[in-house]
Amino acid sequence: MSDENTRLISERALHRFCVGMLSRAGVPPQDAELVTSNLIEADLRGVASHGVVRLPIYIKRLADGGTNATPKPRIVRQTRTTAVFDGDNGLGHLVGIKAMELAIEKASEGDCTFVAVRNSNHFGTAAYYAEMAARHDMIGFSFTIGAINHMAPWGGAEALLGNNPFAVAFPSREAFPVVLDMACSVAARGKIIVAAKEGKPIPPDWATGPDGHPTTDAVEALKGFVIPIGGPKGYALTLTVGLLSTMLSGAFFGRDVGELYEKTAEAQNSGHLFGVLPVASFDDLDSYLDRMDKAISDIRGAKKASGVERIYLPGEREYLSMVKHRESGVPLGRALAAELAELGKQYDVPFEID
Amino acid sequence: MSDENTRLISERALHRFCVGMLSRAGVPPQDAELVTSNLIEADLRGVASHGVVRLPIYIKRLADGGTNATPKPRIVRQTRTTAVFDGDNGLGHLVGIKAMELAIEKASEGDCTFVAVRNSNHFGTAAYYAEMAARHDMIGFSFTIGAINHMAPWGGAEALLGNNPFAVAFPSREAFPVVLDMACSVAARGKIIVAAKEGKPIPPDWATGPDGHPTTDAVEALKGFVIPIGGPKGYALTLTVGLLSTMLSGAFFGRDVGELYEKTAEAQNSGHLFGVLPVASFDDLDSYLDRMDKAISDIRGAKKASGVERIYLPGEREYLSMVKHRESGVPLGRALAAELAELGKQYDVPFEID
Repeated sequence: MSDENTRLISERALHRFCVGMLSRAGVPPQDAELVTSNLIEADLRGVASHGVVRLPIYIKRLADGGTNATPKPRIVRQTRTTAVFDGDNGLGHLVGIKAMELAIEKASEGDCTFVAVRNSNHFGTAAYYAEMAARHDMIGFSFTIGAINHMAPWGGAEALLGNNPFAVAFPSREAFPVVLDMACSVAARGKIIVAAKEGKPIPPDWATGPDGHPTTDAVEALKGFVIPIGGPKGYALTLTVGLLSTMLSGAFFGRDVGELYEKTAEAQNSGHLFGVLPVASFDDLDSYLDRMDKAISDIRGAKKASGVERIYLPGEREYLSMVKHRESGVPLGRALAAELAELGKQYDVPFEID
Repeated sequence: MSDENTRLISERALHRFCVGMLSRAGVPPQDAELVTSNLIEADLRGVASHGVVRLPIYIKRLADGGTNATPKPRIVRQTRTTAVFDGDNGLGHLVGIKAMELAIEKASEGDCTFVAVRNSNHFGTAAYYAEMAARHDMIGFSFTIGAINHMAPWGGAEALLGNNPFAVAFPSREAFPVVLDMACSVAARGKIIVAAKEGKPIPPDWATGPDGHPTTDAVEALKGFVIPIGGPKGYALTLTVGLLSTMLSGAFFGRDVGELYEKTAEAQNSGHLFGVLPVASFDDLDSYLDRMDKAISDIRGAKKASGVERIYLPGEREYLSMVKHRESGVPLGRALAAELAELGKQYDVPFEID
């Protein structure tokens, strides 16, 4: 993965840098550690879009007052199997971890438990939280509203919906949980940005122009909306993920949703929903794990399309990427490395490439 | 909707026919009523693929012994917020209703509750069950494994996955719950069958041939596999819905899944998962409903793409279709009407078009 456009940086050095930056931005050391572990895991897993590339905007929002560096998240209301959790406008990674820990703790007697979150922020990858549950032998669910509206309702020409991500993780005997983690667009907006920069056309199913009709012109597409997978299916799916993430807790939805990169002094009131199903409440854990073994083996052993070397389970590529990058270092684009180094200078935190 | 290719039949007449047919196939009257209401609601909602078009195969499976006409579904294991429910190989509609009723009843004290089902069969539309929960002021989830494997794992060339459907329903102050109900393929296989019959090509993203590579040849496509929405995303999604529907209960998955239309004397051991989140355990119902009102109003009021007259919420078109067809009668294709009339003759049940 290291080539002329990327530099490899050790996990430890990157970790130290991020903790240093967050601390300088006022985040208490223990919280900075939690947020950093979460953030860097995305880079290790090869999901660079949700890793340290986001650190600059998080730091900016902390500096501008849009995010609270020293939040006191609290339970607003709870029953034995539900809670509404107020993140006190803390970093989403921190709030998300605390909220999923709460769901897992509440489920310790074997109950299905859901925690709805408000007053949070962009929380990184949805898989991180679902996997926390899987490590406790629970099926984990994680839903969030996106921090920017990039989608129009089906038939619409106005950005009222986020490209809302969600994750579901299943405990398994593999070294990794089987984990779905997806957002609802055909293509990430970042790919359209790249095409626009390069003056290249985009496929007709990636985006619409501002008039709500599909376009192959990347520049027009950036003024328009990303298209959901499966058309009306993806519209219904992203709407559903958005409603799950906000309606139970009172987080912002639709017209109220802000823009992560703008109005950096204003709270986003982002919402999430976390849920856990303790496997052992349904069946003996070993019976479940036996079935998972067989399911995984069925999928892996499927006849392959010509030219395909290996069939992966959801989450498997990311796990393999993590193992590799823990060893080799995390590949960072040179532009990003330079941006982080520059940011470090402003905050007097050295950005050291080991 | 009535034209030279369709006939309108009143809901009452269609209901009477279905109850008659199921009764002749040995289903007790009360159960036949439940199954029929479920089945016909699909036709009323304009989801004809899951309505009475399936009656002939259900009857055949009952006659051949593949489905149990007089099941005694039972709870195998339960905690206060979970249950595993054995459908005793009954019709999926019946088993699904009983299982969702159990989830709703268990949640009457305000708990999040999930019921995993095994030994069931094809259950019709997933929305039906999720909407049951919404009518009790609960967010309802409904997952099922498909009754036929039509999909390959991503990169594979073997049908190991169903085009697994799921639904999520939200209580609202509208006349209908907002409800997502989707399966994971770009196009229904039925559309490929039509193209093959008409000798027409299909779009390249609908299906692969038996080699696992995309094809525009509809005949080749029928020997191959339907392509999931969003490529690897849809693969991960349908796998996730399949695992949710089977791993907790021990229903069949992957290589064990039978084929609805073949081996009609063998039990399918289909699995489902139903879940409910009681809204009032998270927040005052009115506060939640106020938020839903606003969300719905935001979506409906979105700026429209040119040429679009109206923006719909998920489930709204289906609701409007139901209102219309309750009045006008259910449109049945002439071929289907003839098939039902013929089947009726065999079982001495008159098929009367009012």
